[in-house]
Amino acid sequence: MENFSLPTGTGRLIEASSTNSSDILYGSGFHAADDFIYFETRGMKAVVVSMLEYQRAQQEVHKGVQVIDRIEILRAFPREEYRLDFLVLLSRKYQIGHWLVPGNFPLSKADTLRASGIRVECVSGDFFPERDRKNPTEVEAIRASMRATENAVRQVEHYLRESVVNKDGILVYNGNILTCEYIRSEVEAEFKRNGYSADRTIIACGKDASAPHCIGFGPVHAGEPVVADIFPRSDPTGYWGDMTRTFVKGQASEIVRKAFAAVKLASEESLKILKAGVSGAEVHRTAARTMEQAGFRTGRDANGIPCGFIHGLGHGVGLEIHENPRLSPANPNPLAAGSVVSVEPGLYDPSWGGIRLEDLVLITEDGYENFCTMPKELEIP
Amino acid sequence: MENFSLPTGTGRLIEASSTNSSDILYGSGFHAADDFIYFETRGMKAVVVSMLEYQRAQQEVHKGVQVIDRIEILRAFPREEYRLDFLVLLSRKYQIGHWLVPGNFPLSKADTLRASGIRVECVSGDFFPERDRKNPTEVEAIRASMRATENAVRQVEHYLRESVVNKDGILVYNGNILTCEYIRSEVEAEFKRNGYSADRTIIACGKDASAPHCIGFGPVHAGEPVVADIFPRSDPTGYWGDMTRTFVKGQASEIVRKAFAAVKLASEESLKILKAGVSGAEVHRTAARTMEQAGFRTGRDANGIPCGFIHGLGHGVGLEIHENPRLSPANPNPLAAGSVVSVEPGLYDPSWGGIRLEDLVLITEDGYENFCTMPKELEIP
Repeated sequence: MENFSLPTGTGRLIEASSTNSSDILYGSGFHAADDFIYFETRGMKAVVVSMLEYQRAQQEVHKGVQVIDRIEILRAFPREEYRLDFLVLLSRKYQIGHWLVPGNFPLSKADTLRASGIRVECVSGDFFPERDRKNPTEVEAIRASMRATENAVRQVEHYLRESVVNKDGILVYNGNILTCEYIRSEVEAEFKRNGYSADRTIIACGKDASAPHCIGFGPVHAGEPVVADIFPRSDPTGYWGDMTRTFVKGQASEIVRKAFAAVKLASEESLKILKAGVSGAEVHRTAARTMEQAGFRTGRDANGIPCGFIHGLGHGVGLEIHENPRLSPANPNPLAAGSVVSVEPGLYDPSWGGIRLEDLVLITEDGYENFCTMPKELEIP
Repeated sequence: MENFSLPTGTGRLIEASSTNSSDILYGSGFHAADDFIYFETRGMKAVVVSMLEYQRAQQEVHKGVQVIDRIEILRAFPREEYRLDFLVLLSRKYQIGHWLVPGNFPLSKADTLRASGIRVECVSGDFFPERDRKNPTEVEAIRASMRATENAVRQVEHYLRESVVNKDGILVYNGNILTCEYIRSEVEAEFKRNGYSADRTIIACGKDASAPHCIGFGPVHAGEPVVADIFPRSDPTGYWGDMTRTFVKGQASEIVRKAFAAVKLASEESLKILKAGVSGAEVHRTAARTMEQAGFRTGRDANGIPCGFIHGLGHGVGLEIHENPRLSPANPNPLAAGSVVSVEPGLYDPSWGGIRLEDLVLITEDGYENFCTMPKELEIP
């Protein structure tokens, strides 16, 4: 676990909560809602925590990571130096004159260190570049999250299937109007019962479905697309799942059927070329071209609202819901075996709604392993 | 809503997700899991979002906040300048040569702007200092979150009250061993059903309760303190609740009763002096002194584990679970009417567990309004 590649006098440093930084969680293994410090020097990895967190940190950190109480650092200095910033004292104690930090390192901390003559430099790219290739333990954690995710998508399908349509074309489940809010809260409650957290789960119907991140409100109408985009995070492991299906209760309109077929084909075509070595941009372009050839152009409607395929094809998933590598025009780099990415083509138009179909896959040398087993079918009787 | 106090050429800037920055949520009103930009110039407030978020941002932003599509900014420049950092282009377009940013502004962005000759300066203190005095809408949001929180504490009490104790001294609820995990997952599931999110809810029994942020594991034992520290966030408003009670099923030991009495007295004594104008440090010291006088000293046990009153007395609660003002030795400033703070004395010792009692209160000119109505009683028959 030790890092002997760092020259003496140089260290790597994060100060953040594990809520706001998945890097500090990845490096330390410690979950904390308040900021703490993680650092590496030649031959050493450590977290620095308050008295309040000391006992818990000792139990939770990854093997090879030392736990240091803030007070131990302070004790190395005379009391009159306590007015100095804590990171300045830490740097002196470990004789670090040059810190490498992640790009999201807080500016105020960097400015304070620099004012004390300590060099602070952002690493180029990711702080832990290895995060974009998952090890077997991580793959298992994601696989478990995806089993829970797919169960939730089936739960949404169940509500739609078991509902009846009233004379106003609105779904009724167990005698009550079926709303997006009800489905969301029941799905999220079931996740919590199984040790997952899901917030802002998207259950968006009709026009709401045309804004890709609109969570959806109000009664579910028959004949309109319902986008169910479900992304829970495991409370114990911190790894996310992410999956989307789009359903119509009853019969879909001609344009919705055509859009669904185009999105489904875009998914198939992009998965066909997906494997290690292909660029993220190329996979995105395959999906984009497929939908354009099916007659769906990306642009704006008369009101200036973006329409068509208005987002990237996919993103890495791990300790963050959106992480590297990206399947988007902005990523010309070859994809690596071991990356876990979403493949989620979509089409959006306020005049008929939205369609998105998202699988999560593990990229391999020859292709991919799909964590999703559920077929892509639009209409639910 | 417009800010005419900024000189021409100076702006205020945040780039973050609303998950990672409650400032950007406070300023814009827009919930987004991906980074976006919020800025203010003389007479203007705006967010800059991707095409993907444009429609939703228009619906959600606070009155007076403009929504700008990233593409609108790019269009002001020839294509060959797209290689420049987006924030550099934004600065040029609005002729800003000096940005004021929050302390947690990402270092990599600041370094890029500075390298382009643009001044970037962290504001001293909070980016929106007014956040520590809640307006009536915010107070109502917190009051609603606290109603849900108190219901959940009563739900925990219910599980303990309705359990029987088996021959091994373990609680049995509805025929099943009652575990910390079960209580946590049922409490969190119930929150989701009501539009709240709670993660890492603390239901910690016995020795686990001696580490203040240990979430707690395993069966609940009679005769041992169970710390229930419950802190949900409202999904629609973003405002948190926070409350703690400690219970013992059956009879508590002498030391636990004594610790409970000391913590309860510390709560009462510190609330007695709490009002606008008193310093955060003074309120903390009142609680600390009360517990010390009751015979509980703060220090370390023979294994080096911190014992006693090992955290601050309280913290502000709003769009963040831990925000200003603090009730701690580190806050010598007078408290203001309108602040919402937790008052949560506690005592911890691995040899018998932990006790924490937390109320959430609104500070007024004359005293405080307590959002918690539930009495502080230790033993549950």
